[in-house]
Amino acid sequence: MDLAALIRDVPDFPVPGVLFKDVTTLLGDPDGFRAAVDALRDHYADRNDIDLVAAIEARGFLFAAPLAYLMRAGLVPIRKPGKLPASTTSIEYSLEYGSNTLEMHTDAIVPGQKVLVVDDVLATGGSAKAAVELIERLGGEVIGVAFLAELTFLNGIAKLHGYDVYSVIRY
Amino acid sequence: MDLAALIRDVPDFPVPGVLFKDVTTLLGDPDGFRAAVDALRDHYADRNDIDLVAAIEARGFLFAAPLAYLMRAGLVPIRKPGKLPASTTSIEYSLEYGSNTLEMHTDAIVPGQKVLVVDDVLATGGSAKAAVELIERLGGEVIGVAFLAELTFLNGIAKLHGYDVYSVIRY
Repeated sequence: MDLAALIRDVPDFPVPGVLFKDVTTLLGDPDGFRAAVDALRDHYADRNDIDLVAAIEARGFLFAAPLAYLMRAGLVPIRKPGKLPASTTSIEYSLEYGSNTLEMHTDAIVPGQKVLVVDDVLATGGSAKAAVELIERLGGEVIGVAFLAELTFLNGIAKLHGYDVYSVIRY
Repeated sequence: MDLAALIRDVPDFPVPGVLFKDVTTLLGDPDGFRAAVDALRDHYADRNDIDLVAAIEARGFLFAAPLAYLMRAGLVPIRKPGKLPASTTSIEYSLEYGSNTLEMHTDAIVPGQKVLVVDDVLATGGSAKAAVELIERLGGEVIGVAFLAELTFLNGIAKLHGYDVYSVIRY
């Protein structure tokens, strides 16, 4: 199934000059959405030791949640500031257009738990690297970082050097 | 399985006087998360005609996405302003603390499609009612509105009069 064909290019979003990969067209296609989630699951089929799937807000939630369900893992949201109600730890990072902050609940991970990080698109890698740092700060072991799609020309994978990175689609 | 016991009460969030239902503790429990999603799926086991699951940003994504996967339906995110890259239609509504706006892509629904709306918590019903209005504006048929939990004392269900509403947990 040509999943890349289900992703829509939107020019000049969120700022002029950026060609945005809009995954909503894939999500809205039942077979496409299912195939994307299955591809993620199949890549980790040999890993039955994943305790948690960490989901980067907000589009990452859409792929991480079914993956956690299928893996029988827990699901940990990594959120924008002020969204998590209990005690949090946070990290600021730069991203493709501007800067951002991500937070996790400090009790979201039991030290030693194995965690798979999931987001929709790997662009400059800022969000994913920040997520990895938060997880490790809490004592989690990052066993991989997974994306629906990677924009290889932005070389975000360099920020994730030393980690197992998988993308269903590579542009 | 006592799913309500897996949800944490956080006092004074997001504003003083509100006792916030924090679902992250349920999400992080693999059996709890799975049971919650299964309960939603089981409730609609006889409905094999659901075309789309509409997910209200952001926590709604976490339950809507696995449900769409299991139902072999498409997944349509209903998002906060400025997040959806293509042409949108929007609606403003009041919620428990303040007001908010939700948006959908104008091409997210083919008129006549059957849509199940999903969010994590039914509080005053403002978000869910806004989601229903957006879906109907685009020609979708709302076949139900589903939540992980309902705060019955806020009577949000009154805003959804005439719709089939289901909550896994009722407080």
